[in-house]
Amino acid sequence: MADKQDKMKARLARGFGDRSADDIRATERMMDKIKAVYDLYGFEPVEQPLIEYTDALGKFLPDQDRPNEGVFSFQDDDEQWLSLRYDLTAPLARYVAENFERLPKPFRSYRAGWVFRNEKPGPGRFRQFMQFDADTVGTPGVAADAEMTMMMADVMEALGIKRGDYVIRVNNRKVLDGVLEAIGLGGEANAGRRLTVLRAIDKLDKFGPEGVKLLLGPGRWDGGVEGEGDFTKGAGLNEEQITKLGRFIEFGRWHDFTAGKDGRSVQSTLNDEGMDWLDDEASPRDLFRALDASFGENETASQGIDELRQISQLVRAAGYGENRIKIDPSVVRGLEYYTGPVYEAELLAEIPNEDGKIVRFGSVGGGGRYDGLVSRFRGEPVPATGFSIGVSRLQTALKNLGKLDVADVVAPVVVLVMDKDTESLGRYQKMVGDLRRAGIRAEMYLGGAGMKAQMKYADRRGAPCVVIQGGDERARGEVQIKDLIEGARLSAEITDNDAWREGRPAQVSVPENEMVATVRGILDAQAADRQR
Amino acid sequence: MADKQDKMKARLARGFGDRSADDIRATERMMDKIKAVYDLYGFEPVEQPLIEYTDALGKFLPDQDRPNEGVFSFQDDDEQWLSLRYDLTAPLARYVAENFERLPKPFRSYRAGWVFRNEKPGPGRFRQFMQFDADTVGTPGVAADAEMTMMMADVMEALGIKRGDYVIRVNNRKVLDGVLEAIGLGGEANAGRRLTVLRAIDKLDKFGPEGVKLLLGPGRWDGGVEGEGDFTKGAGLNEEQITKLGRFIEFGRWHDFTAGKDGRSVQSTLNDEGMDWLDDEASPRDLFRALDASFGENETASQGIDELRQISQLVRAAGYGENRIKIDPSVVRGLEYYTGPVYEAELLAEIPNEDGKIVRFGSVGGGGRYDGLVSRFRGEPVPATGFSIGVSRLQTALKNLGKLDVADVVAPVVVLVMDKDTESLGRYQKMVGDLRRAGIRAEMYLGGAGMKAQMKYADRRGAPCVVIQGGDERARGEVQIKDLIEGARLSAEITDNDAWREGRPAQVSVPENEMVATVRGILDAQAADRQR
Repeated sequence: MADKQDKMKARLARGFGDRSADDIRATERMMDKIKAVYDLYGFEPVEQPLIEYTDALGKFLPDQDRPNEGVFSFQDDDEQWLSLRYDLTAPLARYVAENFERLPKPFRSYRAGWVFRNEKPGPGRFRQFMQFDADTVGTPGVAADAEMTMMMADVMEALGIKRGDYVIRVNNRKVLDGVLEAIGLGGEANAGRRLTVLRAIDKLDKFGPEGVKLLLGPGRWDGGVEGEGDFTKGAGLNEEQITKLGRFIEFGRWHDFTAGKDGRSVQSTLNDEGMDWLDDEASPRDLFRALDASFGENETASQGIDELRQISQLVRAAGYGENRIKIDPSVVRGLEYYTGPVYEAELLAEIPNEDGKIVRFGSVGGGGRYDGLVSRFRGEPVPATGFSIGVSRLQTALKNLGKLDVADVVAPVVVLVMDKDTESLGRYQKMVGDLRRAGIRAEMYLGGAGMKAQMKYADRRGAPCVVIQGGDERARGEVQIKDLIEGARLSAEITDNDAWREGRPAQVSVPENEMVATVRGILDAQAADRQR
Repeated sequence: MADKQDKMKARLARGFGDRSADDIRATERMMDKIKAVYDLYGFEPVEQPLIEYTDALGKFLPDQDRPNEGVFSFQDDDEQWLSLRYDLTAPLARYVAENFERLPKPFRSYRAGWVFRNEKPGPGRFRQFMQFDADTVGTPGVAADAEMTMMMADVMEALGIKRGDYVIRVNNRKVLDGVLEAIGLGGEANAGRRLTVLRAIDKLDKFGPEGVKLLLGPGRWDGGVEGEGDFTKGAGLNEEQITKLGRFIEFGRWHDFTAGKDGRSVQSTLNDEGMDWLDDEASPRDLFRALDASFGENETASQGIDELRQISQLVRAAGYGENRIKIDPSVVRGLEYYTGPVYEAELLAEIPNEDGKIVRFGSVGGGGRYDGLVSRFRGEPVPATGFSIGVSRLQTALKNLGKLDVADVVAPVVVLVMDKDTESLGRYQKMVGDLRRAGIRAEMYLGGAGMKAQMKYADRRGAPCVVIQGGDERARGEVQIKDLIEGARLSAEITDNDAWREGRPAQVSVPENEMVATVRGILDAQAADRQR
């Protein structure tokens, strides 16, 4: 053993977290509900390992400018680079490409697992977190995208999130691409700038329209004021380009904007453009008309608008209204690999954030069509679409909404150790065994401490009751059973007469062979009390 | 998209594996059963992240001579080294040390998760695999070790492994240490050699007594013959040391050896030593007597023998016979950090190995007391004991034993797409929605192919039935439902008259509003058929 001087410091690595029993159990319940929806939709579980060849993962990490920045990587003994996966999509693409011939197509699958980001950790920003994805690979039809948005909506409701407290927003990268072409950002040469623009738009919720304008133009200081914090270089668009883009973004938010939520109105701009019919009474059809009028001349945008129209029709036909799935041209999704429809699940409920400020919780998951990701391995088109749920983030949201299904697991009965000789320990061990055989969680106290410490332990564990047999009880062939919950209630009542009711005895002595039945009776009574 | 020439190769990284739906579902069921036992014993789930500071993990990897060999490591941006965990025990030790004050003690917890070994992969030897551990931290009493062995036995039976098909073998490192002291390998200076000896003994099942003798002496060629394969350097013990050690090891196997299973007998040696009473009729008590007689003079060994005696008494008192938990001095467990009792779960059933040879499956998990692992962070004694189940290995064993609880998940009903216009797609989508609302797994065919390809897809998915609505059915307000299972059975009967029975119609047309009820009826009939 190390000296006090020599001892090592026990510390969790920076940006990682330990998980408590409550946390683990709540996640399990949540994931079971999500899985039930995926299963119902005919998806099958398939999992890839946590490590892949670095080149197979590609360079698609959001918010990273340099290749492979943000990824944990290490070299194998044959010199090849390996990386911890940063999402579940890139490994799936590798899997489908590798097993293409033997898989049914379209290939519908889901998977949950840990992903890793080698980033600076911050509050609520971990370097290991869990995602839960569903994907359909091998179909170009937007019916597959429409299905994804409906499945996301169903997942939200399966988790107990009320209709109206969430919305699935849908956009199409083709519309965005067309708009970018229209403002002169088409072609290979502008690929980097386009990405900067997409990332800027993606920050609308975070920085507001003014912040986004800075990111589209010269750039933005993290502190919001010149010279404060780090400087993020902008896309360098001119005033005219920004105005055109800004109006496009606003189409998605016209309900909000015209309703004056952000203290602004696009109505005047729209009036100027001859689209005064696009007001807050306007229907989704009007939105498509407006989009067509503004950007329909561009072929890519026109195709994108058409796909959005189809998605809209499909989900409406299946009974999903605009209060659940909404076309919204401001949706971007950060990842470079999206090629068509993109969608995200947003929680509308206003709940306190980390700083206690009441805000919309925002996105808890999203995805889109990634037609190039499998293709790059196959050299033939393999269209695909899918989404990812941020499990930890969603769990935080559910907790804040009071919708987290917390565990109702009863703590173990503790059999106290009154005599420490091997023969007595054997007897206590047998009692524990009898309780377990009856399906009752139970344990023998295994520490070395006396009666007082043992009662404190039972209390800390939240034990429903303890079983005691010292020499006297042993001589009488009896055990003593203390109901700790009722005991606590009875002591509390001494100072709280209002809550008085006739209690059970908090302590009974029974013959050894009635121990299991008596404990069972106490557990049942406590369960009935909890029901009340 | 990449050209054919440019395209990347999709390949799973060396030593890693993808997991199929059947595999994932079987693992889940298996783990639920293990978890139920841990819960019943009063253990609580607690999880650590997959990455820890390298120094926190320590240098305890089995079968590795150089520090941190075998571990995937990378440097953080603050220069600190991080590693993927190689087991679940070292991270738990860090967790307990870090949160010591607020945890109830003894601290009883369990956790499942992936662990990583940066080793040369081989057949059945993966670099990522799953373990499922349980640990009790904070008690020196062997009652905690005894409990672990009983819990392992209960886990085996919860998984459907019959009594007699498994045994939990128990030994004590103190006995081994005493024996090593007795043959002149005590003290700090011999630590490395002791480890080499322990690892050699641990290879008994793999290489047999002759192979172990070579590893204890000059060394052994991997091919079994001089010059064949790699050479593993031995511990360099002399003939007398090896004989003394050999006899000790044989104590654990005397039933096997005296029964002549390995074509050898230790009876003659034992007779020479005046222990002729230790024959195959001997009781465990006789084993302790023999151990005492041979090694009891050494204080460490004597203490170890006494602890084994206590464990034996405790498990017998709780009703676990020698057919379930057996004291066996040949058990070593490779890890350097064990300090007291060690135990392992062995499957006795003889099943085909990878090469088709019938062999005992061997160890599927094990553990022991590791009193130093938490202490090195705390600078005070924090005794602990626990074990680890090799989930993948156990799953392979259960599969070979025919005890794997394979999934009985019904594949989704497929609604075929006869017309591809958006309006028709909307109608099919609604049918799928109606089926799902009734709790029936269902999907609309999302590929672009014709009727034949769609039927092939449904077949490949194992769909119980398909729903078809072309223009004609639509005009009549009907849908056609094909029972694919019954259909296959009926076609098979044409060539197999013996199996003939009156079948259901394999195809029906029903009004649209009877679709869900009809599909439900088909699924119920198929379920009843499976029961038969």
